[in-house]
This record gives sequence, structure tokens and C-alpha cells, in this order.
Amino acid sequence: MDKKVVGLLGGGQLGRMFVEAANRLNIQVNILDAAKSPAKQISSHEGHFEGSFKDPEAIEKLSKTCDVVTVEIEHVDTQILEKIASQGVPVEPSWKTIRMIQDKYAQKEHLQEYSVATAQSIPLAGATKEDLQKVGEQIGLPFMLKSRTEAYDGRGNFPVKSAADFDAALEALGNRPLYAEKWANFKAELAVMVVKTKDGVLAYPTVETVHEDSICKLVYAPARNVSKKVLEQAQELAKKAVACFWGKGVFGVEMFLLDDDSLLINEIAPRPHNSGHYTIEACPISQYDAHLRSILDIPIQQHELRIREPSIMLNILGASTPDSAVQIAERSIAAGVGASIHLYGKGDARPGRKMGHMTLTAPSMREAEKSMQVLLDITDDVRGKKSAPLSPPSTSGQAKDAMVGVIMGSYSDMPVLQAGINILKKLNIPFETHITSAHRTPDWMGEYVHSALPRGIQVLIAAAGGAAHLPGMAASHTAIPVIGVPVKPTIGDGTDSVLSILNMPRGVPVATVGTNNSTNAALLAARIIGLKESAIQNAVVKYAEESTEEVMEREKLMDEQGWDAVYEKWHGAKK
Amino acid sequence: MDKKVVGLLGGGQLGRMFVEAANRLNIQVNILDAAKSPAKQISSHEGHFEGSFKDPEAIEKLSKTCDVVTVEIEHVDTQILEKIASQGVPVEPSWKTIRMIQDKYAQKEHLQEYSVATAQSIPLAGATKEDLQKVGEQIGLPFMLKSRTEAYDGRGNFPVKSAADFDAALEALGNRPLYAEKWANFKAELAVMVVKTKDGVLAYPTVETVHEDSICKLVYAPARNVSKKVLEQAQELAKKAVACFWGKGVFGVEMFLLDDDSLLINEIAPRPHNSGHYTIEACPISQYDAHLRSILDIPIQQHELRIREPSIMLNILGASTPDSAVQIAERSIAAGVGASIHLYGKGDARPGRKMGHMTLTAPSMREAEKSMQVLLDITDDVRGKKSAPLSPPSTSGQAKDAMVGVIMGSYSDMPVLQAGINILKKLNIPFETHITSAHRTPDWMGEYVHSALPRGIQVLIAAAGGAAHLPGMAASHTAIPVIGVPVKPTIGDGTDSVLSILNMPRGVPVATVGTNNSTNAALLAARIIGLKESAIQNAVVKYAEESTEEVMEREKLMDEQGWDAVYEKWHGAKK
Repeated sequence: MDKKVVGLLGGGQLGRMFVEAANRLNIQVNILDAAKSPAKQISSHEGHFEGSFKDPEAIEKLSKTCDVVTVEIEHVDTQILEKIASQGVPVEPSWKTIRMIQDKYAQKEHLQEYSVATAQSIPLAGATKEDLQKVGEQIGLPFMLKSRTEAYDGRGNFPVKSAADFDAALEALGNRPLYAEKWANFKAELAVMVVKTKDGVLAYPTVETVHEDSICKLVYAPARNVSKKVLEQAQELAKKAVACFWGKGVFGVEMFLLDDDSLLINEIAPRPHNSGHYTIEACPISQYDAHLRSILDIPIQQHELRIREPSIMLNILGASTPDSAVQIAERSIAAGVGASIHLYGKGDARPGRKMGHMTLTAPSMREAEKSMQVLLDITDDVRGKKSAPLSPPSTSGQAKDAMVGVIMGSYSDMPVLQAGINILKKLNIPFETHITSAHRTPDWMGEYVHSALPRGIQVLIAAAGGAAHLPGMAASHTAIPVIGVPVKPTIGDGTDSVLSILNMPRGVPVATVGTNNSTNAALLAARIIGLKESAIQNAVVKYAEESTEEVMEREKLMDEQGWDAVYEKWHGAKK
Repeated sequence: MDKKVVGLLGGGQLGRMFVEAANRLNIQVNILDAAKSPAKQISSHEGHFEGSFKDPEAIEKLSKTCDVVTVEIEHVDTQILEKIASQGVPVEPSWKTIRMIQDKYAQKEHLQEYSVATAQSIPLAGATKEDLQKVGEQIGLPFMLKSRTEAYDGRGNFPVKSAADFDAALEALGNRPLYAEKWANFKAELAVMVVKTKDGVLAYPTVETVHEDSICKLVYAPARNVSKKVLEQAQELAKKAVACFWGKGVFGVEMFLLDDDSLLINEIAPRPHNSGHYTIEACPISQYDAHLRSILDIPIQQHELRIREPSIMLNILGASTPDSAVQIAERSIAAGVGASIHLYGKGDARPGRKMGHMTLTAPSMREAEKSMQVLLDITDDVRGKKSAPLSPPSTSGQAKDAMVGVIMGSYSDMPVLQAGINILKKLNIPFETHITSAHRTPDWMGEYVHSALPRGIQVLIAAAGGAAHLPGMAASHTAIPVIGVPVKPTIGDGTDSVLSILNMPRGVPVATVGTNNSTNAALLAARIIGLKESAIQNAVVKYAEESTEEVMEREKLMDEQGWDAVYEKWHGAKK
């Protein structure tokens, strides 16, 4: 393993982080790029080459010194890669893959041949208004006009909303080979890093990417507010897409999640990708480790690609001053939210240039988002520009990040639940409340309860009276704990409610509390969630301490003033 | 920040990992050590110095090029450090600290002056049998004979068990300045990395270290089977110890945990330490980040030193062949347990030489231990030597890693609980069972329940009948969820049991299940733990699916054979 030498075309930030991974395994990487390029700064040996990573002669020289050649960017000369491969030096991923991916239209066509879902794409014969008119008729307006080559970070894309945009579109892109892509109305952008090894394809978890000015800004790992099913479908689609290319290495797969929860591949990068930076801190094996391992046939397992903790990555982009990136980094460190900072050693910042990134991990996405808001505020302040809010305001009355779902069959149960709601608010536990009747809306009840676990709900509190079936039926539809609150009906003492909730058949447990005691239901939910979230466990402890103090104060009064005085104060004059 | 230059004495593995941290912040480190030393391999610039890090002249030259000088090892010339500090170049930690720590007896004496608990130590006037005899009388036999200087990884220590060892002890250490240390009967060795900043001291969590042949072999973070109280006391003791030294930087503090749970400082290292390697993967800010930040006055917060996931570090020590370390690394990667591997670039392996390390993190220490056993087996195989078992066999009948505590007032409740125990076993949930009676052993009950949370118990299942106080009393003593199982008494229908458990006052919740239904108690515990441990949540889902299948098979039989045939098969001939 440590005797192998890797040749790398390009020594930018992706190369630098790749070299960092190689350094840990003591594997030599010979880099072809300018002297003092970011990757070369952290690798000291005599095997590097100085020059352009696009220079065929230099690439051939490099290839003579290594066991495998790889790239940090796909915009390279694939003719020479084909030549060196024919001379027996493996190029990973294959030059065929790189050549096809360089032409974004060819990439799309290839995916469609393999039945991989991607937006409908049409090549333009020429670059005239008539050509635009014609594709508009074929795929409808608006559409996205794209350069087939040399396009990244949004450069090379032009949104054509109507015929009025034709001139501007041609002015922007008219001198390049073009294709048009059907407009995708997406509700989120997802991405998956895929690892292609000699044995097959593996996938990192599905993440959510947020772009600003067509440049990746934020990555949420895993994606928020997306069902487990969609997360898995995205991984499957990404694996299917990468499987139809040649060679080994990691691939970044960007996707659109449409309104109907279907997925379309947007673009594939045949290399480590910005959407995978989070893996350095969040996963046992980073995307750079994975790239290194896959191209050298060092084994790697699917479960090594898991996420340790929810994480968010924020790019550090240059602003107007040369030191703007360092400013952002320094102030982000000083903010003390535990961000892991990466500065790429690229010299002075220029507006929009990727100068570094920061990754936060936290026990829950909620906590990560809270810390990330601090970093975004700092970034906004340095660049003098306001970011879009982290979480778009919800139009429903429910907490977006609810941990407890409180359900009841009708509004009439609300007064009984109010005490519990007060506890949830006091202990700062986000919750949602829903009307789901076991008897009158059995389907909606089942649907709601089924959705709870994948949406991140940890505990359900269900209130019901009389023939009180809601808690037990809810427990039948989920694997998370359900707490039942028996509600005293207007007729009888509530024994019916208690027994309907308590005496569940063996196999389906309901955690039952006393009649009308929603206080204890909420506190039980807090104890359960507290096992995972220490802030909430601390709140439970504090609540108990306050109760103790309250009773001890009463004991003090009793001790100081005696029975008669306290009786009068508490219960009024004795009769 | 990125304009600062750090001077580093020594370019071994600690220096290398320090440089890795500096690289991420794009901070230049000028290293004084041999060419191609491990740290220099990952740092390419013209500011390094070639030579011995013990050479005063070279150190002075280096100091002229940097803003602060630090060390990767304490065995350096403190005269020259004192000189360069007087010339205005800060040395961190202070040369005073390094000088005092170099002399292990002076170190101990200093700690005792500041009332920091450490083993009683007596300097030897000379190196004769009479001197040994004399200290033996003062501190008793056995004692540990130690070299005051140049001692590390057990070199410089000699255990003196009786007068018969005097000759051998003097032969081993007689040519060095010596002191004797009172023998410490410890049950575990703990360690804490402390960060000394310009503003005060911060501490990483308390870890457990396991040594083999006096060399650190394994580090468990956090320490296993140690109460929360002791973990915190260890952090406090370590902070107190480091606070009485001078300067800034990270310090490794090694401690003994004695049988009575008291703590003694063993040794302090004024630099990053083997017991802190785990922080690279397990914490948002590694010990190397922390060292860099503290010596450059870059802010750092206590909560950035938290552990993301339980983790275990295993040193990769050289064995008999030059490629033994690489062999261990390659086979450990191939094992696919997600170990993060660090190889130090130190060339050929020699027996016992620290060549690298591996860190595992996992959602629970139990899972980390399971994976670590795989790595230990590989290590043992390469070096042809058997490690001590990871977890010494327990002499109690209880699971060492119990997640559920099952408690009852007497053996008579066991038959009711058996069904629940079967479920816990089936779902692979480790549990412990205890007799704790609320009425007959109120103190033991309180003591047991208090200990549950810090020992890692997640849920209590308490069974009781009649005036059934155990579940409610247990809930009063802890912040974890308590599930109450009402046991049907010999007299009456069990309503007394149900109501005694269910109708808790507001403020102290008990999750009550049906009478005698320990099955549901165990399944409820599984749902709760499943929120944290996905394997257990999956087992809950599987259990539900099996129940569904079982019922659907009966429906199939009913559908195929009709009422009469099934009645007979199930209930016998109708009368």
C-alpha cells in the first residue's frame, strides 16, 4: 500500500484534501500543477511536476512515475489520458468517463440510454434565434440553455424564460456548443457521493445542497425534511447513474427533487465534490479516503460511509477584500460553535472564489442549524450581503423540527392536553399537534403515524377517552414509543379510558400515564428524548430539582409556622 | 491568523499531526529536525531547519523566524528556551514548565505544593542498596523506582517488590538520578487532555488508557465503567494540576483510579499526547487544533472539546518485520470496520516502535469494542502475540454493558418478568436484573436507581404488585424513563397494582403497561432505545412484521378451511 505512487492532475483544493488523506496512509502523490499550488504545500518530496495539468507532455512524464493517474478536475486533455492508459498506466476514473462527462449533453444522452432519470435535453444545431425557437417548441418555455463543455459553478448556464431572452442568451453563450434542458421545477437539490470500486458501487448518504448565485453554498447531511424512502431512492439513482460509467473513484451526483418526490439527475462530477466535503468530519471514511482507496483497490465497505452526526458544510467564498476569507475563518473560530475550518492556501481572496469551507457536526440537525446561523451571520457581515434564511418560514402552525407529535381525536381533548403542552414549551421540546381520530379518520391516523418516524418525530403522545383506541392504534402503526393519556369522559370515572389504553395485547406496547395527566406524559416524553439530547435531560433534572425545592419550601413554612397557621393560609378558616 | 509562523522543535509523529492541523488553517510551521522527518513530509516551504531539535544554536536560529516556539517533546534544552524567551520570542508552554516537568520528582513536588493529589515520592540521595532500604522503610514495599529524567514509555521505571529486587533495580537505573514512588494499587488508568489558554484551563473528556509492556496501547474515550462523578473529578483534578504550570498549550495528564475511587496524578506531558489522538476523529476540535489555537491565542471553547461518538484508539506498534506496521494497517482497512488509520511515515518498523495508530468511533462503546476486537486480532496475528482480552470477564451475573435495568422487590416477581426477559434477549438488548424493594430496602433502591444513568442504563423496568411503589419510587430517583409492570397479587384482580403505578402525581411520570404484561414493557424499552440504536429499532420493526405474518397465516387458514375446521384444530371438538 505505502509503496504505491499516485499521479494527480491538478493541485487545487480538491487535490489538497486528497493529499491530506494520502498523507495519513503515507502514500506518495506526485502532483502536476504550478509550484506552491494548494496541494503541493502539504506534500514535500521530489516527485512533483511543475506545469499545467492540461499539458500533454507533462502528463505523459508524470505518468511514467506512478502506478495510477487520477484527476481533481474533469477539464483535462483526454487524448493524452487515453494514450498513457494504452501504455499501461491505469487512469482512474477512465479517460472514457472523463471524456463523456466533459460534454454535458453526451453525459445526459448516455444516462438516458441506461434509463437513468434525467431532464430531457436537446442539442442545438447552431447558435441562432431560430435554433432557440425550435427547442422551445420541442421542450417548452422556460428552458435552461447550457454550454456542453467547460461549464461549472453555474458558468455556462442561461435560463431562457421567454423569446425575449433569446438575444441575451446567445450573447452569453453563443460562441460555445450548446444544448437545451427542460426546465425542472424542483423543491430541493440533493446530492450523493458515489464510490466506484473494482467490485461495484457504494453510496454516501443523501445530502441537500443549497446554491447561491449558482455556486454551492451549504450542504446538509443528511438532507432535511425528506422521507427515508426518497433518501434511499436518491442513493439508488446515484449508484445506477455512476454504474454506467467506466473506471474507479468517487463521483459527485447532483439531483433535483421534484414536487411529486420524483428525482432527476442534474450533473455528475467524476471526482471528489464540494457536496462531499462534510465527509471529512462526519464520516469514518471521507470522500478523499474513499477516492484513494478505490483507485488503489484498497477495500472499502458500505457501512464505513455512514454519518456520525448530522452535519452542515458552509463554503468560505472570497468577498471584496483579499483577507475576507481569513476574516470569516477567524471570526467563525471565535464564535466558538465548534466549526472545523479548512483554508485552502489559495492566497488572496477574490469575490466568489472558493477559499475554504467549514463543517459543523452536532447531535441533532436542529443544533447544527442553530450554530450554522451564527456562521452565516458572520459570513454575511464580512461580505456585506444577506443570506437567504436557513429555514424558510413554515406556512403551517407546526414546528418544522418537531420531536414530539401530540395527537387527539377532537378539539375537546385540548384542555386536558394543555398542561402537557406547557411542559413541552417549558422544557424547550419542539412539538406538533394533530387531530387524528382512530374511529372517524382511521386512514389519516395511520398515514400520520407512519410518517412520524421518517420525519424525525421521536415520541407520540396520544390522548383519548371512553373506548380509547387512539394510543393503541397509533402504537400499531409505528416503531417509536407511544404515550397514552386516558381522558376522563363526561360519563363515568375514566376506568374505561384507562383500561382501553393500558390493556394492550402482548406485542404492541403503550406507555400509559394517569387519567388526564398530560403533565406526566410530557415529562415522560422528555425523559425519553433526554437519552439522546443532553440539554433536554438536563431540563428534566432541573424540573425535578425545582419540584423538590417547592416542596421543601412548604415543609419550611410548616416547620416555622405549624399546622394551624399553614392550614388557614392554604385552605382558609377551619369550619 | 494565517500570517503567524510557529516554530516547532521536533518533527516526529506528534509534530506531524500538529502540522496537519496547522495546514488546515494555512498556518506555517517551521520545523527543526532531520530532513524528511515525519512532520516535514507534509509541509513544503523554505522555512524549515535541518538539524537536531536539541541543538541550542539551531533552536536560536529557528526562533528568529517565528512568532512562537513550541515543542513536540519535553526532552529539550531549556537553557536555550529561556534565552530565546528573554529575547522576546514566546515559548509555549513556558521553558519553566518544560524544565520542571523534565525532572519527574520536581514535577511531583510542585504538584504537592499546590495540593494536587499525587503518589508520595521521595528522592534518593544516592544509588545504593542502603538508599533503597531507607526509602522502602519510609514508603513501604513494594514501591516504584523511577528515573527523574529522560523517562518515557515505561523506560526509566523499575518496580521494586522486595529487597531481593534491589540489585536488579540498581543495575537497571543506578546511573541515573532517582526517586521512589509509593506503590499505587489502581483499578484503572485514566487520562485527560487539558488545554491551557491565555484565559484559563479547559478539559477534554476523561479517557481510559490501557498499557502493555509499559507502552500505551489502547485509549477508550470516554472511560468505561466509571461513574459520571469520577469522570468529572478526573477532569477537575487534571485542570487543577495543569493550572499550576506556566504558559499555554495542551497537556496530557495521566492518572490512577484507586480502588476507593480516589484519583492520583501519575504524570503530566506538556504537549499533545498519545492518549489524545482519539480527538482527531471523535471531537470537533482535536488536541492538535487545540494546541495550535492556545499558543496563538485563537479562541477555543469548552464545549468544542466534546466527544461526537464513543471511540477507541489502538496504537500500531512495530513488530519483528520492517513492514509489520503497514501489514497491520492494510489488514485493518480490509477488515472494513471503519477504522481511521494514521501512518506516521517513520520508515521501517522496529519492535515496539510507535508507527501509527487507528481510531474507531461508533454510536455506542459496545459497538466500538466489537469492532476493536477485530483490529486487535489482526494486530495479534501480525506480531504473533496475544493481547489481554478487551473486557475482563465479569464476576457478577450482570451484563457489563446493560442498557435496561430490570428491578423487582422479590424473586416472586420473576415468573411475571420472564416473558419480558425473553424479548430483551431476542432483540439483543443487554440488561441487568436486580432485587430492590421500595419498602424493605429503600436506601439500596435509591442508590441503585441513582447509579443507573451514569452507568449507561437507558431504561428501567420495574415490576410490583399490591401497594406497588417500586416503579414510582424509582422514577423519583432518576431522569431516565421508568416502565412500570403491575403484577397481579394473589388476592384481588390487580386493580391495586395498576392504580398504584399509574396514578403518579404530576411531575413524576411512570410508563405503565397492562397487568403482568412484561412483554410490552420490554418492547416499549426497545422502542425507546431504538430511537438511539438503529439496530434495535430495526429489531422492533422485524418483531412487528413477524406478528403481522403470524396473524395473516391464521387468516389464511380461516379463509381456506372455514370456521368449523379451525375451531376444532384450535379449541378441540365443540361440545
